[in-house]
Amino acid sequence: MIRSRISGLLPEVRHVAGLHFGWWTDDRIPLDVPAGGKALRPALALLACQAVGGCVEAACPPAVAVELVHNASLLHDDIIDHDPLRRGRPALWSFKGLPAALLAGDALFFAAVQTLAEAPRPDKSILILLASVQVLIEGEYLDTLVDAGTGTSEDRALAVAAAKTGELMGCACHLGALAAGAAPERARHLRNFGQRLGTAFQCADDLLGIWGDEQHTGKPVWSDLRERKVTAPVAAAMAGHTSQARALRALYQQGGTLSEDDCRRAAKLIEETGAKEATLRRARRHVADALEHLSLARPEATTASELAALASLVTDRDR
Amino acid sequence: MIRSRISGLLPEVRHVAGLHFGWWTDDRIPLDVPAGGKALRPALALLACQAVGGCVEAACPPAVAVELVHNASLLHDDIIDHDPLRRGRPALWSFKGLPAALLAGDALFFAAVQTLAEAPRPDKSILILLASVQVLIEGEYLDTLVDAGTGTSEDRALAVAAAKTGELMGCACHLGALAAGAAPERARHLRNFGQRLGTAFQCADDLLGIWGDEQHTGKPVWSDLRERKVTAPVAAAMAGHTSQARALRALYQQGGTLSEDDCRRAAKLIEETGAKEATLRRARRHVADALEHLSLARPEATTASELAALASLVTDRDR
Repeated sequence: MIRSRISGLLPEVRHVAGLHFGWWTDDRIPLDVPAGGKALRPALALLACQAVGGCVEAACPPAVAVELVHNASLLHDDIIDHDPLRRGRPALWSFKGLPAALLAGDALFFAAVQTLAEAPRPDKSILILLASVQVLIEGEYLDTLVDAGTGTSEDRALAVAAAKTGELMGCACHLGALAAGAAPERARHLRNFGQRLGTAFQCADDLLGIWGDEQHTGKPVWSDLRERKVTAPVAAAMAGHTSQARALRALYQQGGTLSEDDCRRAAKLIEETGAKEATLRRARRHVADALEHLSLARPEATTASELAALASLVTDRDR
Repeated sequence: MIRSRISGLLPEVRHVAGLHFGWWTDDRIPLDVPAGGKALRPALALLACQAVGGCVEAACPPAVAVELVHNASLLHDDIIDHDPLRRGRPALWSFKGLPAALLAGDALFFAAVQTLAEAPRPDKSILILLASVQVLIEGEYLDTLVDAGTGTSEDRALAVAAAKTGELMGCACHLGALAAGAAPERARHLRNFGQRLGTAFQCADDLLGIWGDEQHTGKPVWSDLRERKVTAPVAAAMAGHTSQARALRALYQQGGTLSEDDCRRAAKLIEETGAKEATLRRARRHVADALEHLSLARPEATTASELAALASLVTDRDR
């Protein structure tokens, strides 16, 4: 369904959007096995719908919409962060140029809204998606300001994680529940489930950004450190009064980007403060909180265990 | 109403959006007389609504929406084109960085959709806007491909002008007419009026991009030439078999950006082929075509003369 939505784009933008998804080469040769993402957001929308008794088809439009928003934000993010790698392949901007990636992102954003706007019965779904996207955008922007030294508190790092990642996962669950016609309270608990899960997911992502394996993540390691981003583990490490915390703060107070050596040193300092484990514990607390909300949503048993299984994967993953 | 929509954005993105509109300084000091744009698109939406008997208030949401889309596309465009100047002030990306301008553009795009999605009676307006924005995005992308040498025909240059500028002006008129509850045929003629007018507007803009005065346009002159864009006057000049056409094609076949001297030479070559006058004549034909559609929409007399006056300004302007 993502594919049929992309087919509806105009030719040149469709071509570059398909390049981003890995569906064909720049010479327009179709690729058989595109390396897609984890499709976590659509899975959440579909499962949330089923969890409250809806049939999975009803949640297809929101599932497609949140995945398109996510991909659009990746396209724009990789431009902003100069990240050359995405899903193990070159990021679109890096081989097709900034205009292609920027405009493909714009097109996917609007395709997401179109998916909901074309739904037969108009409801509040569009407004809910639009509000979440504004939070996501604010989160992305806050994320770029962090490296300018505006704040290094753990609360701020977690607020950014919640906005950047928690919000859209919460939205996915919310829209899925609404597609099933769920009562407001159940929908709200499912939203909170997704939101907490997304925040935990981002914490785990921040850890993979320091100690992950590029082979598995498909993204460059140390990219956040290089840009001096104060992610959750960095904020946790800086919060202490140890010599390592001081040394890390000093490293971050340098201007510009961190060198390869500085990144290695920063990773070591963060680990020595115990911030790696602290962040993992925090992520697990968010997952526990998520599961609490899931149970308050009184989900159907089978779907509930699928959602719980998915939640447990969030903090224990290598990609 | 633009202002109240921007107030609804989240704090950091709101701040940079306000910087783009010139409402305050980066130190958050309010500015009294912001140098706004021409507000042509909202004017078209409001007048199109009045032209078919609607009251102007009804067209406020579409007027705001199209102006927000326009501003979002300017923010992204200036990043793509490396244009340092917009409305006589530094372009947002140039003093606040690429992330700020990219994300402010994203936020304004979604704010535009929110404006229509919050309207009390949902109708086809959102879908019409979304479809037009996809055309606009394709046009912007085609515009960046032109300088890569994919095509130099006049038809292509005009198709890009129609997509980049005609489409959103057509959409503004269409949505304005719908807000008045116009019959489909009248709405379609008003859409065509706006679309032709916008294409003429873009031709005039392309001329100002070569022979305009930065003091009046608020944009850098020769920016299109520098990027080797095949705008309408350039395509018209290249179409000939004169020595000037050949020399211009040779200049454009160089890689990279054109130097100041090359731009001066290109402008002189284009003028010598008569392409300046030819493009102006073509723009005037588009305006005449627009006025034909206006009359077919059977507009109310007073508003019709206001729209006609506005149309006549499109080709005879210095900003």
